[in-house]
Amino acid sequence: MCCSPADAAPRLARLREACADKGIRTFFVRDTSNIAWLTAFDGVFDDEDAHALVVTPEAAVLHTDSRYSAAARAAAAREGAVVVDDSRATHAAFVAEQVQREASGEGVEGGEREAGAPVVSAGPLGIEDSIALAEYRALEAAFAEAPVRPEMRETSRFVLNFRGVKEPCEIDRLRAAQAITDAAFTHIIGFMRPGLTEREVQIELEDFMRRHGAEGLAFPSIVATGANGASPHAIPGDTVLEAGQCVVLDFGARACGYCSDMTRTVFLGEPDQCMRAAYEAIRAANEQVEALLHPGITGKEAHELAERVLADHGFEGKMGHSLGHGVGIDIHEEPNLSPRNPNPLVPGNVVTVEPGIYLPGEFGMRLEDFGVITPEGFSVFTQSTHDMVII
Amino acid sequence: MCCSPADAAPRLARLREACADKGIRTFFVRDTSNIAWLTAFDGVFDDEDAHALVVTPEAAVLHTDSRYSAAARAAAAREGAVVVDDSRATHAAFVAEQVQREASGEGVEGGEREAGAPVVSAGPLGIEDSIALAEYRALEAAFAEAPVRPEMRETSRFVLNFRGVKEPCEIDRLRAAQAITDAAFTHIIGFMRPGLTEREVQIELEDFMRRHGAEGLAFPSIVATGANGASPHAIPGDTVLEAGQCVVLDFGARACGYCSDMTRTVFLGEPDQCMRAAYEAIRAANEQVEALLHPGITGKEAHELAERVLADHGFEGKMGHSLGHGVGIDIHEEPNLSPRNPNPLVPGNVVTVEPGIYLPGEFGMRLEDFGVITPEGFSVFTQSTHDMVII
Repeated sequence: MCCSPADAAPRLARLREACADKGIRTFFVRDTSNIAWLTAFDGVFDDEDAHALVVTPEAAVLHTDSRYSAAARAAAAREGAVVVDDSRATHAAFVAEQVQREASGEGVEGGEREAGAPVVSAGPLGIEDSIALAEYRALEAAFAEAPVRPEMRETSRFVLNFRGVKEPCEIDRLRAAQAITDAAFTHIIGFMRPGLTEREVQIELEDFMRRHGAEGLAFPSIVATGANGASPHAIPGDTVLEAGQCVVLDFGARACGYCSDMTRTVFLGEPDQCMRAAYEAIRAANEQVEALLHPGITGKEAHELAERVLADHGFEGKMGHSLGHGVGIDIHEEPNLSPRNPNPLVPGNVVTVEPGIYLPGEFGMRLEDFGVITPEGFSVFTQSTHDMVII
Repeated sequence: MCCSPADAAPRLARLREACADKGIRTFFVRDTSNIAWLTAFDGVFDDEDAHALVVTPEAAVLHTDSRYSAAARAAAAREGAVVVDDSRATHAAFVAEQVQREASGEGVEGGEREAGAPVVSAGPLGIEDSIALAEYRALEAAFAEAPVRPEMRETSRFVLNFRGVKEPCEIDRLRAAQAITDAAFTHIIGFMRPGLTEREVQIELEDFMRRHGAEGLAFPSIVATGANGASPHAIPGDTVLEAGQCVVLDFGARACGYCSDMTRTVFLGEPDQCMRAAYEAIRAANEQVEALLHPGITGKEAHELAERVLADHGFEGKMGHSLGHGVGIDIHEEPNLSPRNPNPLVPGNVVTVEPGIYLPGEFGMRLEDFGVITPEGFSVFTQSTHDMVII
């Protein structure tokens, strides 16, 4: 697995610049995906939210615990832009102490302030509004006891918005994750047959991805047959695949720290006319949106085009979810292709396009690709066919 | 897979009683595991935090979205104690509307207040301090626009504390998850040999659990050989298993919505004297703690006993983490066996006992069981041997 190397320094520089614009001196990062992105550390973080990153104009220090410190120090030695501290303290106490050091002129750990440089005040502390309320209260309490109490500035999607525009090395990783996912689709359509359960198909699908380079899954896979397909987030169970049904497969690998996401709907034997019509509708919606996507179109416009195409095919109001979402380190990132996103897309945005039709008690189907907005349009990562797959 | 049926009504009754004690009228639950426990819905929730549960003295209403509503309605029809609402609104707007209905005397959805019953005021709204700060601000904003603004009461581990004492049906599920995990250990020691990578062992281990009844993994498995074992949260990679090393395997299945968690350290060929001494130390610590556990002992005392046994064997201060943690719907729950838990254990607490020794640059090892505190002592779920396993 080739993981194109990433570089922390320009990412930290962007955060520092944005902080300077907002008058924030110190930024406290608690979201693990934001930390993974800012530090560019590979192979350190798992799914525990066990870390904090304190970023000042001069330094970036990762506060972690002894379970992670060896891996984090090794990554820091390669990377150079971040120092690691595994002292036993709550994250709130840690950032409070760093701010006191800042205010005293000593500077946070790892900073390169010159000796004798003038004492600066503890400027505002930027925090993410994704932190738990309990952690916010812990910050308040930690600063209440401290000599210097910076103003807390709550930010929303501050780092997440940077992550919405992917770098070339991230595009490489996303493509690598999708290549595994496409290979798994080819494998699974050779494996599927009536008589298997959804669960058996899921296990085979996920095992294939793991054995072909996936570090893990981007999310728990969906394998939903018959009426189960009408629940967009059905959990695969003991339902048996039967001839005449369609099966929704929604799955993705994680590779080099990045997610992939695709959905295909396949048919067990010749589909009936209603299924054919629905499939034509989602395929048309998918392809018309992908042809239209380019810098400047808004998430809302993309969503509305898909709704219109589905309606034109006789399936008005049968989607019920947004057309798509960003993908990166997390499976759901910025930007969304949804009625609630009035912002224009920009080159580097990576989004899914996943129109669906759900007829409760009958069937559901969805056709999902993902790709990147380019200066010219939309480059699709997903290589699997849009043609009907009939098993 | 036998999933012992669970019942929502007594769980909701406990929450309502605790709310009444604290003067809370309406409780707003956002933690998905808390919602899964309170509703006793099986097979509805995945790893998206997409739901909210509003509980009043008369009603419990799950606010979800169209992706989940079919499964949720089916579970609600079986269960009877919870109604489902998939109206398009933010959770904050939803709870604000329910509180207005409460205050108007109409009652929240699904409630059984008699017609003409006296109008009650909107009493305090209980919230979890695990909610995101952004959601807290959204609640403030939703109520700022509403005629009736209840006081918000922040609670900490309110539902989580109930979940710390397991019901018999939960013990059954935890045992079922551990039985899969024990079987996987037996399988993997037959599979492991020098020359395989950590990653290959991980894939085989996880695939076995999935193919033998696991719905998923309790957490990403750890397979760490040689010096990698000295990082308690090492991520399995391309390191090759070599003769003379020990390998830490930390893994768990998820079954019937519940997690298991076990660690074994196995040896590739005859271990050297230092490894033998370390293994004897962790085994003694594990077994002495398990023999001592009973209602009344505190988490701190259990942790300190383990530290003492390790020190007596010459490995003072080499653990670096807490001795154990609760396990249930989540892999980390209440109570902890840690220096920071002064509370006595009670029957029904389910905890891990996982002493470890980590020698940076050399090796690491850990021996972890889990089980339940009983009136008499501690009943261990884990059936795998404590004897040295030499491959």
